[in-house]
Amino acid sequence: MRAALMFEAGDVRIEEVPDPRIEQPTDAVVRILRSCICGSDLWPYGSLPHTDTGRRMGHEALGVVEDIGSEVATVRRGDVVIVPFVWSDGTCEFCREGLQTSCRHGGSWGGTHFNGLQAEAARVPQADGTLVSVPVAEDSALLPSLLSLSDVFSTGHHCAVTAGVGPATTVTVIGDGAVGLSAVLAAKRLGAERIILMGRHTARTDLGVEFGATDVVAERGEEGVAKVRELTGGDGTHTVLECVGLENAIETAFGVVRDGGTVSRVGAPQYAVVPMDFRVFLRNITLTGGVAPARAYLPELLPDILEGRIEPGRVFDRTVDLVGVPAGYRAMADRDALKVLIRP
Amino acid sequence: MRAALMFEAGDVRIEEVPDPRIEQPTDAVVRILRSCICGSDLWPYGSLPHTDTGRRMGHEALGVVEDIGSEVATVRRGDVVIVPFVWSDGTCEFCREGLQTSCRHGGSWGGTHFNGLQAEAARVPQADGTLVSVPVAEDSALLPSLLSLSDVFSTGHHCAVTAGVGPATTVTVIGDGAVGLSAVLAAKRLGAERIILMGRHTARTDLGVEFGATDVVAERGEEGVAKVRELTGGDGTHTVLECVGLENAIETAFGVVRDGGTVSRVGAPQYAVVPMDFRVFLRNITLTGGVAPARAYLPELLPDILEGRIEPGRVFDRTVDLVGVPAGYRAMADRDALKVLIRP
Repeated sequence: MRAALMFEAGDVRIEEVPDPRIEQPTDAVVRILRSCICGSDLWPYGSLPHTDTGRRMGHEALGVVEDIGSEVATVRRGDVVIVPFVWSDGTCEFCREGLQTSCRHGGSWGGTHFNGLQAEAARVPQADGTLVSVPVAEDSALLPSLLSLSDVFSTGHHCAVTAGVGPATTVTVIGDGAVGLSAVLAAKRLGAERIILMGRHTARTDLGVEFGATDVVAERGEEGVAKVRELTGGDGTHTVLECVGLENAIETAFGVVRDGGTVSRVGAPQYAVVPMDFRVFLRNITLTGGVAPARAYLPELLPDILEGRIEPGRVFDRTVDLVGVPAGYRAMADRDALKVLIRP
Repeated sequence: MRAALMFEAGDVRIEEVPDPRIEQPTDAVVRILRSCICGSDLWPYGSLPHTDTGRRMGHEALGVVEDIGSEVATVRRGDVVIVPFVWSDGTCEFCREGLQTSCRHGGSWGGTHFNGLQAEAARVPQADGTLVSVPVAEDSALLPSLLSLSDVFSTGHHCAVTAGVGPATTVTVIGDGAVGLSAVLAAKRLGAERIILMGRHTARTDLGVEFGATDVVAERGEEGVAKVRELTGGDGTHTVLECVGLENAIETAFGVVRDGGTVSRVGAPQYAVVPMDFRVFLRNITLTGGVAPARAYLPELLPDILEGRIEPGRVFDRTVDLVGVPAGYRAMADRDALKVLIRP
């Protein structure tokens, strides 16, 4: 079959790789219906050193179960399934607590050791704990929104949930990428009435407004902080959803959060340390968030998509086939596309 | 009257200063019955550059109201009152939310501009919002425990509360100083059944065990982390109460916290940044805590002291008069005393 491999920064190719097959009795093999490119894929796309063997890419998918191991009980051949962006056994303490990203027998897609989901098919370990069947056809118009549950919308939701967003909390979302816009939608869904979106790409912030943002702040850095403070009577917002992962974004987050408030970060951190000095201590600021246990949120979020109440799949603004994946990376790196959907 | 002033690192003197008097209609003047020396006073004691005018010290006290301004309504002359370690108006949004440390009209004791509480008396601004009357005599045996509510025990409690300590959470307390021991007692009071105390001064950890610690880990650094992990099946504890404020303590905290868990810090940070890199992000660790809004916790904690259920005042292991304050600083800096009570 064919799959996307990254050989170094800027160099993504579609190559023939071995077909996936059942290796463990708990495995499933899934034919990929939809996959996509993640903002986090752009970090290696900008910096990966050369590798002769290439690195398999992709960690978000929706597909059809083609084969299952002898111990798989919860999905069947032919099921349309969401493949969350880590696999997990579903039975360990962490899974039972809803932190599948720390599963004792879990793991993540891609890299040199395992298969990525920007491909025609994939072997899914721990199929019972990982996959979630959805009652839709292979050509459902809901596929993009359902796919968003594998990572991007679940990540925005995780950000809002860990920050404690609710009807009584004001919110600043930092970043108008697909995760930031998902965080806006998630905050709105959780009842937030005041959602300030920091971003300066009008096409994106326009979608943010449709998703529920009440204010858009295009300024960055100190100017951006001043603007958010001005909009909030000088105080900042109770919660800040940091959806970028860069040092200046986390600095802005501490600048716009209200005393006693919470910064949640879901942008994969491209920094090693966080500026939480004595001044932050005096203000009782909490920093939370992390990689989203997407699997945990599926039961809660699925009905809202199946019943049409939210449409997080609107973050996909371009569709490519597998051959178009390298161009898709370029388009996202150039900010020419917000998020690229893949139909293998 | 006499008060303690610090002129530089290691140089604390008792000097004559002007008597406090009512300056604003919202002020009270309080004669100090008990004050004490805080672990945080040791930071300037170790590092303060020379100052000719001296710096007033002390931010924890219990006293008797001697005079009140014309607008003061909730305390009367003769009341025995707790003086929390910031003053606050009690009416702004932050005070109503229980974050008196961010009060819009609040402030803190000591320094060059205002009076400290290691003194014979003090002017208390915002008396209605700040002071809490307690129904005890001036020679009550409860005074040390009541005094602990002005800062040290409230700080331990704040640490446990913000960390989310409860019956279902395991706890590591880092630091066997007075705040660490207070955090042990607070965690026990909140129902924690497993409390691991990291400290290596036996006299102190013995008191920690009496306060509720179930395990004591004397090792530090990587060895200490390994020991806590060994005690917890490899996982670490759900909550970590960081009661030191040094970089190695916060590093240890991230080492012993369980995936998905919370580190709360109440040790005044002597560091500018916190190591919350991609590995911490993958583990979904929360960092919370900050300076304790002691005033907020008084209504909840007072009955437990008045009715004898807890005795946080046991952290005081030495008593001095005002003349003995310089020796008290030395004793705490030399770890010869845990926490020094002052009877002016």
